[in-house]
Amino acid sequence: MQHFDSDYMEGMHPRILEAFERTNMQKTTGYGLDEYSVAAREAVRRACSAPDAEVHFLVGGTQTNATVIKALLRPHEGVIAAATGHIAVHESGAIEASGHKVLTLDHLCGKISAEQVEQYMQQFYADESFEHMVFPGMVYVSLPTEYGTLYTLAELEALAEVCHKWKLHLFVDGARLGYGLAARECDITLADLARLCDAFYIGGTKCGAMFGEAVVMRKGLVPHFFTIIKQQGALLAKGRMLGVQFLTLMSDGLYLDIARHAVVEAQRLKRAFVERGYELYFNSPTNQVFVVLDSIQEERLRLATSFTEWERLDDGRLVVRLATSWATRPEDIDELIASL
Amino acid sequence: MQHFDSDYMEGMHPRILEAFERTNMQKTTGYGLDEYSVAAREAVRRACSAPDAEVHFLVGGTQTNATVIKALLRPHEGVIAAATGHIAVHESGAIEASGHKVLTLDHLCGKISAEQVEQYMQQFYADESFEHMVFPGMVYVSLPTEYGTLYTLAELEALAEVCHKWKLHLFVDGARLGYGLAARECDITLADLARLCDAFYIGGTKCGAMFGEAVVMRKGLVPHFFTIIKQQGALLAKGRMLGVQFLTLMSDGLYLDIARHAVVEAQRLKRAFVERGYELYFNSPTNQVFVVLDSIQEERLRLATSFTEWERLDDGRLVVRLATSWATRPEDIDELIASL
Amino acid sequence: MQHFDSDYMEGMHPRILEAFERTNMQKTTGYGLDEYSVAAREAVRRACSAPDAEVHFLVGGTQTNATVIKALLRPHEGVIAAATGHIAVHESGAIEASGHKVLTLDHLCGKISAEQVEQYMQQFYADESFEHMVFPGMVYVSLPTEYGTLYTLAELEALAEVCHKWKLHLFVDGARLGYGLAARECDITLADLARLCDAFYIGGTKCGAMFGEAVVMRKGLVPHFFTIIKQQGALLAKGRMLGVQFLTLMSDGLYLDIARHAVVEAQRLKRAFVERGYELYFNSPTNQVFVVLDSIQEERLRLATSFTEWERLDDGRLVVRLATSWATRPEDIDELIASL
Amino acid sequence: MQHFDSDYMEGMHPRILEAFERTNMQKTTGYGLDEYSVAAREAVRRACSAPDAEVHFLVGGTQTNATVIKALLRPHEGVIAAATGHIAVHESGAIEASGHKVLTLDHLCGKISAEQVEQYMQQFYADESFEHMVFPGMVYVSLPTEYGTLYTLAELEALAEVCHKWKLHLFVDGARLGYGLAARECDITLADLARLCDAFYIGGTKCGAMFGEAVVMRKGLVPHFFTIIKQQGALLAKGRMLGVQFLTLMSDGLYLDIARHAVVEAQRLKRAFVERGYELYFNSPTNQVFVVLDSIQEERLRLATSFTEWERLDDGRLVVRLATSWATRPEDIDELIASL
Repeated sequence: MQHFDSDYMEGMHPRILEAFERTNMQKTTGYGLDEYSVAAREAVRRACSAPDAEVHFLVGGTQTNATVIKALLRPHEGVIAAATGHIAVHESGAIEASGHKVLTLDHLCGKISAEQVEQYMQQFYADESFEHMVFPGMVYVSLPTEYGTLYTLAELEALAEVCHKWKLHLFVDGARLGYGLAARECDITLADLARLCDAFYIGGTKCGAMFGEAVVMRKGLVPHFFTIIKQQGALLAKGRMLGVQFLTLMSDGLYLDIARHAVVEAQRLKRAFVERGYELYFNSPTNQVFVVLDSIQEERLRLATSFTEWERLDDGRLVVRLATSWATRPEDIDELIASL
Repeated sequence: MQHFDSDYMEGMHPRILEAFERTNMQKTTGYGLDEYSVAAREAVRRACSAPDAEVHFLVGGTQTNATVIKALLRPHEGVIAAATGHIAVHESGAIEASGHKVLTLDHLCGKISAEQVEQYMQQFYADESFEHMVFPGMVYVSLPTEYGTLYTLAELEALAEVCHKWKLHLFVDGARLGYGLAARECDITLADLARLCDAFYIGGTKCGAMFGEAVVMRKGLVPHFFTIIKQQGALLAKGRMLGVQFLTLMSDGLYLDIARHAVVEAQRLKRAFVERGYELYFNSPTNQVFVVLDSIQEERLRLATSFTEWERLDDGRLVVRLATSWATRPEDIDELIASL
Repeated sequence: MQHFDSDYMEGMHPRILEAFERTNMQKTTGYGLDEYSVAAREAVRRACSAPDAEVHFLVGGTQTNATVIKALLRPHEGVIAAATGHIAVHESGAIEASGHKVLTLDHLCGKISAEQVEQYMQQFYADESFEHMVFPGMVYVSLPTEYGTLYTLAELEALAEVCHKWKLHLFVDGARLGYGLAARECDITLADLARLCDAFYIGGTKCGAMFGEAVVMRKGLVPHFFTIIKQQGALLAKGRMLGVQFLTLMSDGLYLDIARHAVVEAQRLKRAFVERGYELYFNSPTNQVFVVLDSIQEERLRLATSFTEWERLDDGRLVVRLATSWATRPEDIDELIASL
Repeated sequence: MQHFDSDYMEGMHPRILEAFERTNMQKTTGYGLDEYSVAAREAVRRACSAPDAEVHFLVGGTQTNATVIKALLRPHEGVIAAATGHIAVHESGAIEASGHKVLTLDHLCGKISAEQVEQYMQQFYADESFEHMVFPGMVYVSLPTEYGTLYTLAELEALAEVCHKWKLHLFVDGARLGYGLAARECDITLADLARLCDAFYIGGTKCGAMFGEAVVMRKGLVPHFFTIIKQQGALLAKGRMLGVQFLTLMSDGLYLDIARHAVVEAQRLKRAFVERGYELYFNSPTNQVFVVLDSIQEERLRLATSFTEWERLDDGRLVVRLATSWATRPEDIDELIASL
């Protein structure tokens, strides 16, 4: 029996575990002021070709989204997101709990476009009563999206441009960023993100770390962000645990290497589904595979592996998601393919 | 030049002004503990055939919505509303500012149905990750809706039933309640509202008062609601001003009388539009008239009166709203009709 | 039996009532965009010798405090106030409900000093863990204070200077501002307030209006404050009611005239207390009189008038507050004095 | 050069590291639904002799305080705490950010008493305007306190009783609970806490874990606390990391063993300070030592070790804190003592 429910089922990449072992009995100061965190921040800046960027390490994705969005928005502002965005659906109202509305746009395979934002802004200011409404203050997109799809560099640049035009912050949720950057179709780099976004984060939890997200922010964007992190309960006391992890991930190209491995295996699995006549629900180029199962296929796949149930279609078929990770063994994919 | 932009353009009903004059130099305690407020609360209870109900007077509609919803929801809960609901669109994010998400349903002429709520709840609990989502804790509807439409008693009873089944609070925004109750098509009474809802309010601001909304709540529903009102900045120091107004409105059937007048005039206007070949956008039986104007009609109407621009349709036609009020003079309607 | 519990026991000044009567049936747009509100804002600016100031009309004091403070503070910031400040004690946690801590200083007769703020700021930044604490972002003082005492111009200038030095906003709660400005001891003017504060308000509710507070803000201080007002439920639909009131109060010196009357009567009462051997608790130069009553005095005063019980001292004596208002009749003061 | 700044300078106890190694490549479900978390919850229940208690694992202390307090309080309520309490001073306003006021009492060596709470409640309800104030809804105490001091069982029982009387929740912050329970003077057990408190937590971060706090709650106290944890950004995706840690700490008495070691070393250090004529600031029986240093002592100690500067007294002397931990080596204490 295999398990492809998600990309956070295993612990941490062995090199991170090894780094924990190596540093465990050292004494350092807390709250991310230690040497490992300092070095990790520097490594992130280098990887992003952004020597001036601010880097902050937080523990998890929902926490990071809520903290960054709260820090960037003023009271009368909300955040534009795809109706399927993580902040819109799967964070138990964390954004609203910090006082801000999520303003949703229809998505196309999990994505929203610069054109949609442009149209939204034009309609907003054309509305007689816009001063009685929530002002859009930010655009939130995920890379990859909830559906494993990717923005192109041109699309991201267009979003950045429309945000600039309307004075909206651009924030990219990179909880699975590695699996996006490592996709063959992806023409976006960390340097592009640092150049185009006000803030984005490099997801650790789902990409080989035990936990951790590295926020990269335009310098000076949020004075005293450290204190806002603390207020949100997002400041790790033993902050060096985040430094050690990101220093490891950023060394020797590890972050992209392990993501690439997951993507290769996922794409191999995807092709096998297609070859065996399964229908894809989204054609994700990353580490997630979305398949539509009829009842026979469903029964067969349930014997082979666990997965995430995405949605039951009106015709009774089931959409499921399988996710590979940095830890996926090729032989497990082989075995799963054999059972399709 | 006429003005039919809204139903809050004039001051207050003359009998309220007269009551202010009569009581002005009296000394009373503040914060709604005075004799007028006590009597007004009793009058509201009587009008609702709800001797045990709690009655609280607040100043305005957005404030009332935010205060009641905050008081009734627990932190993990949100409020279900039509996508066109006032709380969803035109309150500048007041609900989110108090920490709660507005969960929107598609509307039919401003209304949502018990079936939709039932389906939403079934899908919610059927979703594998519902514990990562915002729990629906309340259903919010408006009577009349933003589009001047009405629920039938059967529809409201069905909503109450589905709310009861799923342990959702039912809250009715009655900012224009008078104009709803006074409509010929309306088969709902104040007593029905008190029986079926956990909380609702009798709108004063738009129905003849200078300001004020009377919240009617199931007894014991919210301990210390007084303090929550205070915290929301919604407690009027000279609270008797609310008591004086609602005591007047609840006396001698004034509230419904003045609403009936507005509805009669609006319906007369509506029929005139139809007779002259204008297209209605919504067929509202209350004090609001929604008309679609082609360019010639638009030009003509702009010469005759001001109105609220609702929406520009893709074909270039303009949807406008005209509203009558307790203060509308029949001769003004005559004059407007003559100019159509 | 007299009533001197507070300064908001009567309705509104007759000239305001008259203005309501005169304008009642006029039609205007809502939300403070009407001609009366425009003129009233201009009148406030003129009275403050602040042609560029922004003026906003809100309904009540707690609401105004919460709205201004929320609008001015960033998430990691709190507001410094006297431990006896209205926001610290008597607003049911309205400031905390908007996410911000009230940082209290010991008071001297309701006042705090520039020296205290200076010391607080020095200690704050000297604390190793200040980044784990709430950053002071604003100083809040009341004029007059809760105890009817006054800042001198020199004291206010010193506060403004220390705020400037440490980049703190200075916000003056003027719920009873008239009674302060009208005191013989007061050397502060509206123009001083406009010059020294980032924001302050001219209280209407307690100074002759039916309700209403006029916020005066440094131009450009809070973009889209209108929308924040709306979000806080503090935007009056029939906004002209605020305009009509403040236009009246700002005309022909009415605001100060009626305050002066109240202060004169209160001081007369205060002197009578002293002459008859009563002990003052605070020597307020404004419209509030604070007296310490032994059991005989208490019994006697209870027969003559109602009042607010302030505090029961350990020795059993009772501190009470009596307040005069714009509506206080000299003969009532005479009668009360006769009964002391 | 030694480092005794705090008890979270090292990584994690070797047996936890070993458990991470042993389980690293296993696949489990996320969010604390895995078998390790299930077993750890059961182990906590057993250790507390509380078979029905709910146990939830969160990441850090500030986060846990904010989440529990938000979940337990209603909107009009605040939390009573010592003025020196962590939530009152060192959480960057996290409690206020969730909408609630911290109501502070004077402390005695970091502690508050049942008598103080009783007096506070009596004065609260005796105040004429208590409905305009924040209602106390909970008492928060720390065991040990910020100053390393301990409540006795009798004191805790008295607090529980007064809370019961006034319908206040009792919540114990146990961020350093192990070091309290392991103190020779402590007569409180985990079972006492489970019996007397509505909620408390067993601190992991400072007591041998890499991170993690185990909340123990009265069954049924907070419906859907899981979702509130998620909303607060406090739900760890790889939740088993918390399960693995607490299962290890709860096995074979490890939690108390490692705490006892730290306490023994701290007390040895404390006695050495006293013997050499240093003055104690607080006589903590736990793992923290508070010493007052004159300038010569300060100079000498700075050469020997780093520490936390607590407070500079008016006479120029410096209060410092030294903390031992599960990882403190006896030879390091020996060396430090030798240098005093």
